[in-house]
Amino acid sequence: MIRPAPDATTLSESVINGETTPLAIAETMLERILAQEPDIQAFVSFDARQVRADAAQNKGRGLLAGVPVGIKDIFDTAEYPTQFYSPIYTGHQPSRDAHVVTLLREAGALAMGKTHTTEFAYMQTGPTRNPHDLSRTPGSSSAGSAAGMAAGFFALALGTQTAGSLLKPASYCGLFAFKPSLGLVSLEGVKPLAPSFDTVGWYGRSVRDLQLLARVLIPGFVVPDVERRPLRLGFCRTSRWDQVDPQVAQALEQAANQLRNAGHQVSEIRLPDEFAGVFDDHHLINDCEGARSLAKEFQRHRTQLSPSTLAMFERAAATTWEQESAAKARLARLAPRLDELCQPYDAMLGASCGMVAPIGLESTGPSDFIKFWGAFGLPQINLPLIRPEGDLPIGLQLIGRFRDDGQLLRTAEHVAADLQGISQS
Amino acid sequence: MIRPAPDATTLSESVINGETTPLAIAETMLERILAQEPDIQAFVSFDARQVRADAAQNKGRGLLAGVPVGIKDIFDTAEYPTQFYSPIYTGHQPSRDAHVVTLLREAGALAMGKTHTTEFAYMQTGPTRNPHDLSRTPGSSSAGSAAGMAAGFFALALGTQTAGSLLKPASYCGLFAFKPSLGLVSLEGVKPLAPSFDTVGWYGRSVRDLQLLARVLIPGFVVPDVERRPLRLGFCRTSRWDQVDPQVAQALEQAANQLRNAGHQVSEIRLPDEFAGVFDDHHLINDCEGARSLAKEFQRHRTQLSPSTLAMFERAAATTWEQESAAKARLARLAPRLDELCQPYDAMLGASCGMVAPIGLESTGPSDFIKFWGAFGLPQINLPLIRPEGDLPIGLQLIGRFRDDGQLLRTAEHVAADLQGISQS
Repeated sequence: MIRPAPDATTLSESVINGETTPLAIAETMLERILAQEPDIQAFVSFDARQVRADAAQNKGRGLLAGVPVGIKDIFDTAEYPTQFYSPIYTGHQPSRDAHVVTLLREAGALAMGKTHTTEFAYMQTGPTRNPHDLSRTPGSSSAGSAAGMAAGFFALALGTQTAGSLLKPASYCGLFAFKPSLGLVSLEGVKPLAPSFDTVGWYGRSVRDLQLLARVLIPGFVVPDVERRPLRLGFCRTSRWDQVDPQVAQALEQAANQLRNAGHQVSEIRLPDEFAGVFDDHHLINDCEGARSLAKEFQRHRTQLSPSTLAMFERAAATTWEQESAAKARLARLAPRLDELCQPYDAMLGASCGMVAPIGLESTGPSDFIKFWGAFGLPQINLPLIRPEGDLPIGLQLIGRFRDDGQLLRTAEHVAADLQGISQS
Repeated sequence: MIRPAPDATTLSESVINGETTPLAIAETMLERILAQEPDIQAFVSFDARQVRADAAQNKGRGLLAGVPVGIKDIFDTAEYPTQFYSPIYTGHQPSRDAHVVTLLREAGALAMGKTHTTEFAYMQTGPTRNPHDLSRTPGSSSAGSAAGMAAGFFALALGTQTAGSLLKPASYCGLFAFKPSLGLVSLEGVKPLAPSFDTVGWYGRSVRDLQLLARVLIPGFVVPDVERRPLRLGFCRTSRWDQVDPQVAQALEQAANQLRNAGHQVSEIRLPDEFAGVFDDHHLINDCEGARSLAKEFQRHRTQLSPSTLAMFERAAATTWEQESAAKARLARLAPRLDELCQPYDAMLGASCGMVAPIGLESTGPSDFIKFWGAFGLPQINLPLIRPEGDLPIGLQLIGRFRDDGQLLRTAEHVAADLQGISQS
């Protein structure tokens, strides 16, 4: 089911050089989609005629000239319905594109359709399957964007992350993923869940593709030109390392050794005990903010909400204002301490997930190693490790300091090259 | 031009008790609007037939049963165009209501129309005049909501604040205003400007109306039932007190003495010198985030942006990533110090603005005393001081600790009562 494919940087260069056309690229994608989509179910809204019409009109200019992209169905689009995987919004047609969708189009990208999300990017899963093994989940909530990337339906895709929604599917589907620092990318036209954590992120086929999209979606963004060799990396297991399956732990230790062998420093970061509360504080704040964000749906359409979303409302109702404030205050107090611990490193390194994609489509496994860093708004990257043929993907997580997104993207380039034997462009 | 009017709490009680009907209330408002709107120009979208049709269908139930509200034209509405005072969005019709507009409707409120804002809630002013003196500005950017409140066109109104956009018009127009802590009220369907500061807020005719709307727009919100007498208030002048006109300084000193005479403690809060940089840091972050938030309009429709918005883009382009990060880091470091300084007080007290509403409609005066506290996401209230007949309004600002919005609203109730001789309900 897995299609290797040229990355977006290559595709847009080919279009600009006249070696191919947006329509020719679209046809290649459409062929794959028509063949595989019945199994994968990446799309909730897809219209081959619309794609062809858009491709024919594509001017073949811009940083993303003719690059096919998947758009998670949590972003408003004027061309396709936006339904948040909720029956409340069946057929709902926004009047304008989300901010980042407009920036994609301005850069010459070609929207392939809207991809499956969980209900309001929370827990309730959809029908999407993991292209690496159709009996397994692709992870959530950016399920369709991740599965569609792995199946070669598009070259880039938009997702969002509140707890683990971007990096978990990347880890399970073997993708490059980048979640920027909180607040850098406009959320205009994106359905909010927990504003303390909600962040737009994206999938690509290479670190340079993650960088490319950063330049499009964060106006004024620059990846610094500094070369730091050897890299100083901090391996941080957090207090939940006992959740990590042996095969995942082994793959990550092996990656750390590969990086040491390549000449980099990989040290252990040990967190003080009080960081053990971050997981629960994230969960509590997510519940309370989620209940406020979806209050209007709860008031008007309670019976159309899924049991897992209703359970969030129940937990929120059982949480006092003071408990929520205390959780937020603890994170605010820990943030400068974590920043100090991370200060000596070019990036932190750890697991994205403690397991490979589990069997079944209903439950997608914990997001602890992702939400630990997201709780502080830090930039995060998933790098897919090279795996033996036929083995399921395992992701290595790289984490940067707050607003040091450029440095993280530069570091990730070196790490990926040294782990995967890719020559640095 | 100034119409005294019953507050929203009184109106909704009258509707629920059957003493009046939503349609009767609407007709009273419409009569005033038809007479005064040509002078005031509070509305950018207004349709008397639509208002009557909505009023006739209003069920007369809910916390805001039949209460007429004004909605700043920065909130998406499915019933009226949403144009952000920008020619780019002329006639633009959203497909759904902003989150808070839905909550207002669910609570039984009656939308009277969309009120004038500045372009994208930034600097470029519209045609709205101050009902207290038609030669003067009502302040910006929530100009139409504030002027319409002062003219008696509605009983409550929605605004937003990034720098001074809610409290400045309240100060100039003599209104009660509440800006909650950053992040408490959903921004879904609200045009972003600078996400580090953007906050939904509202106008009312009494502190209890501000509380009423907090219960509607912040699900689960409770005003604590604690009585703290005497109040401990911290009078904080900030480093820009030299900007305060003598008549404003005198009115605020007089208010402080009134509160002391009522038995409350009013102490001076002196800020360490490093807080003098907060004003410029807010300004710099506002520029950089504003340029990112409006990047798509800049890319597609540059020639349709006003000079003041284009100037923001120029300043942002001349600011480095490091300068912006340093400004954000300074605010993050100062926040816990400010919280510590404020800890002994039930609320801080100061000027909302250093002047009364200036003459002319193009420039609305500085927002320094408002954005100083907004830089830290703190909850803020404007209380209109009692003024001699014919004098222009002057506002007293009350500020609470982060997420202690309930305590601030309770404190404001006591302060307003003791300043204005209003009996506490």
